[in-house]
Order: sequence, then structure tokens, then C-alpha cells
Amino acid sequence: MITKQSSIGTPVAPPADLNNLLEPIKEELQIVEQWLVSNLVDDSPFIEELLQQVFKAGGKRIRPALCLLSAKATANPPGKLGRLQIILAVLTELIHTASLVHDDVIDSASLRRGQETVNRRWSEKLAVLIGDLLFAQASVCLSRLMNPVVVGIYGQVLGDLCAGEIRQMRQQFNTAMDFEAYIQKSVWKTASLFAAGTHAAPILNGSPDEHIIAMKEYGLNLGICFQIVDDLLDYTGSTEKLGKAAGSDLSQGLVTAPALFVLRRGGEAARKLEDIITTRQVATPQGIAEAISIIEANDGLTETVQLAREYAAKARQALTVLPSSPYRESLDGIVDWLLTRTN
Amino acid sequence: MITKQSSIGTPVAPPADLNNLLEPIKEELQIVEQWLVSNLVDDSPFIEELLQQVFKAGGKRIRPALCLLSAKATANPPGKLGRLQIILAVLTELIHTASLVHDDVIDSASLRRGQETVNRRWSEKLAVLIGDLLFAQASVCLSRLMNPVVVGIYGQVLGDLCAGEIRQMRQQFNTAMDFEAYIQKSVWKTASLFAAGTHAAPILNGSPDEHIIAMKEYGLNLGICFQIVDDLLDYTGSTEKLGKAAGSDLSQGLVTAPALFVLRRGGEAARKLEDIITTRQVATPQGIAEAISIIEANDGLTETVQLAREYAAKARQALTVLPSSPYRESLDGIVDWLLTRTN
Repeated sequence: MITKQSSIGTPVAPPADLNNLLEPIKEELQIVEQWLVSNLVDDSPFIEELLQQVFKAGGKRIRPALCLLSAKATANPPGKLGRLQIILAVLTELIHTASLVHDDVIDSASLRRGQETVNRRWSEKLAVLIGDLLFAQASVCLSRLMNPVVVGIYGQVLGDLCAGEIRQMRQQFNTAMDFEAYIQKSVWKTASLFAAGTHAAPILNGSPDEHIIAMKEYGLNLGICFQIVDDLLDYTGSTEKLGKAAGSDLSQGLVTAPALFVLRRGGEAARKLEDIITTRQVATPQGIAEAISIIEANDGLTETVQLAREYAAKARQALTVLPSSPYRESLDGIVDWLLTRTN
Repeated sequence: MITKQSSIGTPVAPPADLNNLLEPIKEELQIVEQWLVSNLVDDSPFIEELLQQVFKAGGKRIRPALCLLSAKATANPPGKLGRLQIILAVLTELIHTASLVHDDVIDSASLRRGQETVNRRWSEKLAVLIGDLLFAQASVCLSRLMNPVVVGIYGQVLGDLCAGEIRQMRQQFNTAMDFEAYIQKSVWKTASLFAAGTHAAPILNGSPDEHIIAMKEYGLNLGICFQIVDDLLDYTGSTEKLGKAAGSDLSQGLVTAPALFVLRRGGEAARKLEDIITTRQVATPQGIAEAISIIEANDGLTETVQLAREYAAKARQALTVLPSSPYRESLDGIVDWLLTRTN
């Protein structure tokens, strides 16, 4: 029986409540919801229906929240927020959702957060089209910002998302991957988009360079931490909350931090784990159970928690140059929330 | 036996040779080819290999050619061409190719121009990823132009491509479509991207407004004409050159100009054709042969030729405000070439 724990450990502060942290941007997040389902490409009701279907499943909207908090925390005075910042938050969630829809086609996934994926619910073909539609909506938003630097940042994000997906595809069942490559993949797949949002918000505000650089650092480190926690939750999270079985990534050949820590240390445990992965026994229920118990017994999970905390500390450190405000406090609190999240 | 003709009729001028028309931008088109296969998203050789595989099939590169000719024809003095115009030409072809790759997944197409499609050759999954990669490459190019107006034009193009594909999907086997909807769909699917390239080139040149407006008009009308000729070639082109059987669009339920002309006129022929389409007999070899012979016997093809010529004349008319140059001559000649093209 695989042991499951609901969090990755007790942080210094008590577990953060996400709703409280998002309170200072509650109204703006509601406007974001309206924009997400607005048809920006033509005047047909059908496209709006498609968007409503895609977004009705909800989600934490962590990326738009980070855009809005970054915008408010770096505004002069803090808390001021223009319409362009709402559009930035919307386009960031649109790109995230588009990439999820296409990733689910590429990975033949049938469940995401316990709900049927678009490809499963309708068809692979419609999922391709819906992903493209979401990217198109994001492009229309991006063009409305009228800011070439922000266009450059998001152009690179689209490239990073593809690079991450291609790299992940090519590294399946590869036990020789090093930590540098693992962190790089996490940047491409996740942190690049987190950083784009927190970085672009102060650019749109015309904030001082040190704030712009700090918010990019914050987003990048928070994004890497988010991906590490995601990879950890794949081992420790509840099947009910994640909508997938424990070790699901590894059983598909995705070697992430918990396994990498054990493989890197060498010795008998590493050799045994390597054997289970490279011979693809991990794809069987017995193989994955054995792999997980080797990883647990050899501190793979506790070392991963430590790694996540290192990036969390870097994210928190970046915030110190900002003036004190409720928005900076929420950005700080989100780091804690991230370390204690369970899905 | 279905009659096939190699061209849609003899234009006033002798058939144009595309190579001669492209002579003034020959060197620039070679630079475009190098850019198309350049990895702009990361430093891995794998992505470059993928791009080489996608682009080695070649193609007429008509969209980049139009960008470059529009740029040279509206430059001061005519013929001057900056690096940004090359990037514009590249991103226009990247978006075109990306949309073809995804359309082939959506339509489950296995052949394009007689060659295996990406989804057929590799897999649907890789085709999704390659399409996204091409869009990402285009976004990186777009951001390098540092021009918010051009970003807006291309953002709208992405929306138009999706709107066109969705509309086409929903109008399958629909005989009640009117000509306005048919032309609108042609704008979304084809003319919008043609116009984006010819329109953005003089914007990047800082040309006078009347030249900018004229080149948008040229691209839009040429694009509509291109789509009408495409729809006609589906009936009249050689199977060998097109890589698909005659009437292939109609057999899949795509009602285009040749059928619309017959349906619009009413009477016995229209009723018979409507019946074959709505009962989906067109999907059978016998049904499609009967549909084609009704369309031929009731002037569906000759009226479509006339429609294409009307848009060709509008495109040519738009050019008259430009100063005389070899580049304007080529833009004019491309209208002729388009009317006489056979694939």
C-alpha cells in the first residue's frame, strides 16, 4: 500500500488560505472570468458557447491572480490597476488553457483535475481547433496591449511551451537526465508563463527597472517551485483530488525530481530504480508500486520538498525590494500556499 | 467520365510564368527559405530537424512572395528592402503552414499536394505539436517587428483562421449557405492572411496611407480570388497535380462556388443537386459524379470563373495608385498567374 500525505510538510507559517490571499483582487478576477468567455474573433454565438464549455470547469486562476497582484504591488500608488492589466491576466490564462488542451491531445489524456479532457469529451479534432482558438484569443488580447516588449516576452513563452513539451516527449524513460535539464524543462513548461505575467505587469505600469527585474525573478522561481510541487503531488497527492493515480507521471516514463534524487545518489537503490524505469516495468501496477517504495525509502520525496523550498525562498526574497502593501503580502502568502497545496 | 481542363480559361494576357514574376525577389526568397527552418525557440538541433522535414516538401511560397513584392513596390525608392520585411514574409508562411498542419488533423487528411500529410506520416499528436511550434516561431518573428499595428493585424488573422475552420465545419452539407457567407468564409480562411502580408509590408515601410490601403485591398481581393480558383480546381484540376480526386471538397460536404451558383438559380437542377448533397449521396463515387455533371451542365464552373475574374479585376485595380516599378508589374502579373494556375 502506497503511503499518501496531504501536504509536503508544515511550513513556518500556518497553511495559507488561497481565498484570503486573493481577496485584494477579487473583483478583478471576476472581470477576468467574463473576458475568458468573450468571443474576440468574430460575432458568432457558437464560439462563445465553446469558450463557456471550456472554462466552466473552473480552475484556481493562479496565473491571472499573479498578474493582477504583480500589477497592483508595483503600481504607483500600490493598488492602482488599469484595463491593460486585466487583459494581461486574461491572455495569460488563455495561453495556459490552450497549452493544456493541446497537451492533453498529445498525451492522449482523458482526465484532468478529475474532469474529462476536451479531447475525451468531444474529439481530438475539436480539441486541436479549441486550442488554436484559445491561442488566437490570446493573440488578440496581446495585440491590444500595444507593447512590443510584452509581445516579445509572450512570443518566447509560446516557444518555451513547445520546447518543454518536445523535450519531455524525447526524455521519456530516460534515467540519465540531470537536474539542470530537469529545472530547464520546468522553466519551459511552467515557469516561463508564470514569469511572463509577473514580469509584464510592472512593464505595463512603467515601474522602475529593479521592480521589473524582481517580479520576473519572483515569477520564475515561483513557477519552478510550482512545477516541483506538481511533480511531488504526483507521488503524494490524493487520487481523488488529482484525478489520477499515484506515480502516474513516472508510469508514463516522466522522470521528475523524486526519482532523480534517488538515481543521482547511485548505489543499489539507484540501480534497481533505473532498471524498473528503463525496462518500462513502471508502466505496470506492480512496477510503479515498487518504484514508489524505493523512492520513498531513499528520501526522494523529502529531498524534493527541500528543493521546492529553496525555490520558494528565492521567490520570496525577490519581493523584498517592493514597497510594503497588501498585494506584496498576498504575493508572499502565495509562496506558502504553494508549498502546502494539495491539488 | 468527368471532363477535366488544365486551366480556368484563357486570360487576355498569355499565361504568366511564376518564376519570371518572382525574379525581382529571387534572392530574398532564398533567405526566407533559410529562416523557415531556423530554430527560433531554443538551441536544440531536434527542432531544426523537424522544421526541415516540414518545409522540405517545398511549396509555391506565394504568401512570402506577395509580402516581399508589396514591400519593394511601396518602398521609397521602390526596390529598397529591410530585414524586417524578410521576417514579415517568413512569419506569414509560418502561420500558413501551421494552419495547414492543424487543418489536416482536423479534416483527417492524408494527402496534401500529392504528399503525405504530417498527421499521416508521423501521427496526429506530433502534428498538433508541430503546428504549435510553427505558430510559436511565427510569434517570435512577429515580436521582432516591434510594431503594435502589425501585431494587431496578425492577431486578427489567427482569429479569422479559426473562425473560418469552425464555420466550414458547421456548414458541411448545408445547401442553404448564401454567397455572402461563402465570400466571408473565403476571407477568414485565405484572404485575411494574404491581406495581412501585403498590408503590413507598406506599414513597416512607413508608406503613405493610400498605398497602405491599396495594398490591403489588393491582398484581400487576390486572396478571395485565390480561394475561388482553389474551389474551382477541386472540380477541374488534375488528380495528379492536386493529389486528390475531382469533387473531393463537395464529397466531404463543402459547398463552394460552383455548386452555389447552381443551387441559387433554383429549378429542377438545383433541387436534384440539393437532394444529392443533403442526403449525403455526394460521399459516394456515383453521387459525386452525378453532382459534378449537374454542376457542369448548369454553368456552375463558368460562372465561378467569372466570379474569380471579378475579384482579380478588383485586385489589379488597387495597384494603380502605386508608382510604376518591376515589383508592381509582378504583383499585377501574379493576378494573371493565379487565374491560369493549375495546382
